[in-house]
Order: sequence, then C-alpha cells, then structure tokens
Amino acid sequence: MIAFLSDFGPGSPYVGQVHAVIELLSGGKVKVVDLAHDIPSFSIHAGAYILYSSLRLFKRGTVFLVVVDPGVGSNREPIAVQTRNYFFVGPNNGVLWPVIERDGFVKAVILDNDRFWLKPTSYTFHGRDIFAPAATMLALGVDIESLGSPLSIDRLVQLDIRRVREVDDGYCLDVIHIDKFGNVALSATREDTILENVCVDGHTIICIRNDCIRAKCVKTFSEAKPGELTVYYNSFDFVELAVYMGSAAEKLSITGGDEICMKRPRV
Amino acid sequence: MIAFLSDFGPGSPYVGQVHAVIELLSGGKVKVVDLAHDIPSFSIHAGAYILYSSLRLFKRGTVFLVVVDPGVGSNREPIAVQTRNYFFVGPNNGVLWPVIERDGFVKAVILDNDRFWLKPTSYTFHGRDIFAPAATMLALGVDIESLGSPLSIDRLVQLDIRRVREVDDGYCLDVIHIDKFGNVALSATREDTILENVCVDGHTIICIRNDCIRAKCVKTFSEAKPGELTVYYNSFDFVELAVYMGSAAEKLSITGGDEICMKRPRV
Amino acid sequence: MIAFLSDFGPGSPYVGQVHAVIELLSGGKVKVVDLAHDIPSFSIHAGAYILYSSLRLFKRGTVFLVVVDPGVGSNREPIAVQTRNYFFVGPNNGVLWPVIERDGFVKAVILDNDRFWLKPTSYTFHGRDIFAPAATMLALGVDIESLGSPLSIDRLVQLDIRRVREVDDGYCLDVIHIDKFGNVALSATREDTILENVCVDGHTIICIRNDCIRAKCVKTFSEAKPGELTVYYNSFDFVELAVYMGSAAEKLSITGGDEICMKRPRV
Repeated sequence: MIAFLSDFGPGSPYVGQVHAVIELLSGGKVKVVDLAHDIPSFSIHAGAYILYSSLRLFKRGTVFLVVVDPGVGSNREPIAVQTRNYFFVGPNNGVLWPVIERDGFVKAVILDNDRFWLKPTSYTFHGRDIFAPAATMLALGVDIESLGSPLSIDRLVQLDIRRVREVDDGYCLDVIHIDKFGNVALSATREDTILENVCVDGHTIICIRNDCIRAKCVKTFSEAKPGELTVYYNSFDFVELAVYMGSAAEKLSITGGDEICMKRPRV
Repeated sequence: MIAFLSDFGPGSPYVGQVHAVIELLSGGKVKVVDLAHDIPSFSIHAGAYILYSSLRLFKRGTVFLVVVDPGVGSNREPIAVQTRNYFFVGPNNGVLWPVIERDGFVKAVILDNDRFWLKPTSYTFHGRDIFAPAATMLALGVDIESLGSPLSIDRLVQLDIRRVREVDDGYCLDVIHIDKFGNVALSATREDTILENVCVDGHTIICIRNDCIRAKCVKTFSEAKPGELTVYYNSFDFVELAVYMGSAAEKLSITGGDEICMKRPRV
Repeated sequence: MIAFLSDFGPGSPYVGQVHAVIELLSGGKVKVVDLAHDIPSFSIHAGAYILYSSLRLFKRGTVFLVVVDPGVGSNREPIAVQTRNYFFVGPNNGVLWPVIERDGFVKAVILDNDRFWLKPTSYTFHGRDIFAPAATMLALGVDIESLGSPLSIDRLVQLDIRRVREVDDGYCLDVIHIDKFGNVALSATREDTILENVCVDGHTIICIRNDCIRAKCVKTFSEAKPGELTVYYNSFDFVELAVYMGSAAEKLSITGGDEICMKRPRV
C-alpha cells in the first residue's frame, strides 16, 4: 500500500496524475490512501509533522510517497529510504528526516536509475515522473537497491520538528501546522512535558511577538467557554493552541513560521 | 461499505488518518466512499442536510460515518444507530436525527465499549479513535449491540432541517448550505410545496433582512439570463437560490445561519 | 476504469454523490480515479487543458467522466464519445473537443436513452443523473450506441486550447489554468516552439495588458532566484509562467481569461 502526502492541494490535477501513474504502472494492484494534500505550499515542516504523527496508523511495509518539494528540478536528490517498518519516497530536503530518525534508518538510495522513471521525464513534476514510479515499485516488492545508488545516512538532510527553546519562565516553540479549524500545532510533543512545566493552576501565558495572553490548560478545547484560548496535547500528541468554536490562528494572528512562547503565570 | 462525511476539510490529514484507521482495522476489506468533507466547520445543519439528501444513493447496509462534531471531548455521546436500511456512527448532536427519522429508528448504542477504541484514545479526535473503529466493525458485520450500552430513541438529540415559518404572503426558511458555486439551499423540500405557493406568473420575492429582490421561479438556473436570481428545487429536492453563471450567496451577501423569506409578488 | 474530472470543488457532496452512483450502479465493480475537482467554476478551458494533458497517463479503454457544465439543464447536449483509445462522457460544450481531436474521433451519441438515467432525474445535476450512469455503463462494457442517438462529429462543439496569436516580435497566448502554487499555464505547447522563438540569451519579455516585465527562460523554476519570474514548458508540455518560491499569478495580477504576450527582447 502507498500512503500519499503532498502540498499539491486537494482535488488538484497533480494529485490525480500521481494516482493515474500508480494505477497505470501497477495495473491497479497497488492501493493508495491519501494521507493529506492540504499542506501549505513548500511547507516542509508541516509535511514532516503530519507524516511523523501518522506513521503508527499504517501497517508494516507501507510505502509513504511524500511530495513537499519546493526544490524540484534543483540539485536536491530524489530518494527512497527503508526504515525498520516502512519505506519512504520523496525529496532529500528534510521532510523525511523525523520519521527516519523515529523508525530507525536501514538503507537509502538516490533515485538515479532512470529505467524506472516515467518518460518523457519532466523537470518540474518529479512527484509524478520519479517518486510515484519508485513508490509503486517498492509497493510491488521491487528491491530498493535496484532503484538507484546507495546513499549513506549522513548525506540525508536533517530537520527538527521538535525545536524547544528554553527561556526565563518557560519555552519558545515554532508553529509547525495550522489546521482548517485554526488550531495551531507547536514544535513539542507530550514527551517534552512542556505543559506540565508552564501550566500553573490550570493556566499558562502564551506570547506571540510582544503580545501575551492567558490560556487555559485543558485536555480538550470543549472544556473551555466558546471564544476562550486553550492549550493541550492534540490528537497527534503535539502541543496545540485552540479556541473552542473559533480559530486560534485568527484570534492571535498566527501564521506559519511564527514563534510562540509559553510562560508560567506568576501566582 | 462506509460512506464518510465530515467537516475536516478536503485533503486534510484528519480525513487521511480516518482512512488509515479503517484500512488498518479492516485489513483493507472495507471500501470507503468520501461523501463530503467541505462541510463548514461545526455546521451540524449542513452536515445533516448533505447526509439526508444522499441516503437514497447508497445500498442497503451502508455504514455512514458522520463527523461534524464541535463538542468532541465534551459530554455529548458518541453513538451508533441502526435504521431500517442503514447504520450511522457519529456524535449525538442532532446531525444524525433527520436521517434516523426518515429511514426509521431500529436501535442505538452509546459507543462506550472501549475495547473497540483506538489506543491511546485522544480527547480531541473521536472521529479517528472512536467513530472510525465503530464504523469499521459495523461494516465487517459486528453486532451493533457489542459496541456499547443501549440508547433509547428519546435520548437522541433532535434537529430540524426543514424549518418553515409561515408569514404574511409567504414563508421564511433557514439557509442550510451554500455550495462552491454560491448556490444557497434552504430548509424546505419539494414536499413542502413552497414554490407552488409563492411563485406567481413565474416569479417570487426573496427577502433577506430588510432587502427584497425579485427572483425567477425555474426548473434550472440556465433558464435565466446570466446574473439573474433564480429559485427552484435543487438536485437534492430542497429549495435553492442560484444566479446563472454567478453566485447567489455573493449577490445577496448570504451566509450560513441567515433566514430567507419568500413572498408572493403582488400582481 | 473511470477517470473523473469536474469543477465541483474538492471534497464536495457533488463529487461524493457521483462516486456513490457509480458504486451503486456497478455493484462496486468499477474503479474511479479522481483526476481533478479544483477546476475553477464553469472554466471549460481549464477542464479541457487538464484532460488533454492527462490522457497519456491512462490505459486504453479508460472512460473519462468530465463534468464542467455551466449550461446544465439548457439545450447543450449530454454526450458520450468514443475515440481511438478512450471513451468520454460529458456536456457538448467544447470541454471534450481537444482530446477528441487529439485521440481521433470514432463515434458519438447524445445520451437521450433515459432508460439509463438515474430516476428521478434532476434538472441541475446531470453529472450524477445522466453522465455518471453513462460512464458506469461504458466502464462495464455496454455498447455506446445503446446509450442514445448517434451524433456526427460536425455537431460537436469545438474549443481551442492552443490559441497562438502572432504579433510583432512575438506571440500572445491565453491564460488557460492557474494552479495552487500560482503557476500560470498558457495556450501553447512545446510543439508550438514559442519559447525557442521569444527567448534570446535566456530571457524574454512578458506583457500583460500594458505592463511588461523581463522573465528568465528556464527548464525549471528552481534555476531562478526566489521571487524571479520564469517561463518554461511545464510538466503538461504547455508554456507556463512561475515565480520560484512564490506565485506568478499574484506577482503579475493574472486571472483566468487574461491574454499574455511574449516578446523577443531587443539586444
């Protein structure tokens, strides 16, 4: 099975053409689950976060086709990676790094065996012409080593989606994803025990740029009143800001790339 | 088969993760048809309307997985309902009521048998952790009663998507859905014979707040001139406003929740 | 197999209901690949362009269900067309013309045999009620001639998605598609050798209305600096404008329907 993640936009012809290629090359034998296609354009962090958080929902042997690829056609390498339980196909730009680190690197190749490329091969759509064929081959059981030249782990581009910067009275985190409801995911997981540290009497202070606002520490946003800002571990196990029946991103004017600081309230 | 309806947004990772869970738990044995994922966030009325209007297109035994769930994590109950021809899984917030009433209640349960929940179970994503597993079990033929405690029909939250308020010279209806083209569906069906009452000589008067405008009563918007406001029974059999080659929602500044009144023109 | 293309919007209930009908009428025997649903509302040119560019990715015998149908319910005919390698079902409004011309016309029918229509048949959703059943029948091997009355090729509405207007020092082209990244596809393909003519020393001049701007002629946008305007043959083999790590449509305020002129720079 292939799990397909991209920033192509839902319902876009790029998504459709990738499906068509997998269908064509596999003779309809490979099933595709669309993991997400609403990743903001070029957002490697958001793609890496969704992939990292979804891994455990897929059975051993699943091939992840990951196309968040702002550098398509440049010298960033198209790669395939085998980890302990999965295969990953995508650009060597960091988007695959967190899952490789998490699941355990086994081996990797550069997809330079053009025998497997779709012909004619475009310069701007490697998702369709190089990545989709490679993912299809892996899903059909083709040996990863036949897809190209070996690549050692130290040549993989790294990416940190769990960046935690310690400051006086708390921590600063990156915005790594904003969902359709305006919920804002931040760069720390339950394992980083941030909320345990910054919540006092069920509240914390959220600062963005120079504005600070009180937020309620909850298990789920519906513990709050409509309009109230909350913070909790989301269903992907990351720290998240939300407004019950509203949009945290709008309320705080947050956009991707912002840094959010969380501080212990003075009591 | 599972028919899946949500307000998660097309191409969102929430949709993808639900697909992944169904695939994982069923070993790929259960087919999923995505009915709609562009329901406006938290819009129980729009979700209920789409579900109600789509029922007849699915074969007997279909399991409808319906996740329009603003109260996730609160005390609203997660439920499964069997009707004469179908199964429904979702929150007990009214979104399922119109189809239950239409198809005929047989039995219902609260999804409190946590043996079937995905673990660890989140507080904010019951669509993935409680509803999707329940829908998968029903699609695989598991007895609904094994999923949790019985719930009687009088404990189901009710919802009216066919609210018609009679006024002098006509009727007032709720906006229940605005589609991608700006067509505006209202809370009455062909059976309510509204248009038969308010159309005189092929025209009616549409009022929103204090503004009234003449509209052409048609069978299809293309009977009108580009830009002209029309009203007709839409393909879901509900009263709908449209502008041929344009957007009725924009032309009239209509948003969800508005009330629209339709009056017989004086002749 | 059915390849399904529409302007219904990703995740919309119209897409879902068409899937439901195909599933219902075929008893689950027909596979559907969603080619694209983000075509701008009523944009026959964009639909024709995506279809034309995707054809080669589908195996012989594929049935294309194409619903970009602003005139639904008017006197435009619902048709099915057989070409050398494929079947096409959709409105006779030009959206099918470029692929028919490309693949070679064999025969066509008007879908007027209402025995195959979904009942009750709506006036506004022929995609679900007339086109989807016809596509399903073709995918199941039903003879095209049983679907309705013969239609000769000269009664097919024509459409030109490769309009090239020669001017002093260059060519003017139509904007036929703007993708999610803001890349702007124009009405000429690699075969029209436009870039070979207007690029001098790796640059050309792009004019929209009365504003002209220098653009870099490249193989892929990543050859440029972030923010720089580029022009190249895209992965669909059409001329395209892009800004590396940005949006060409935004930078140049381009919308669908605009005409773009490309001129040889004076050297």
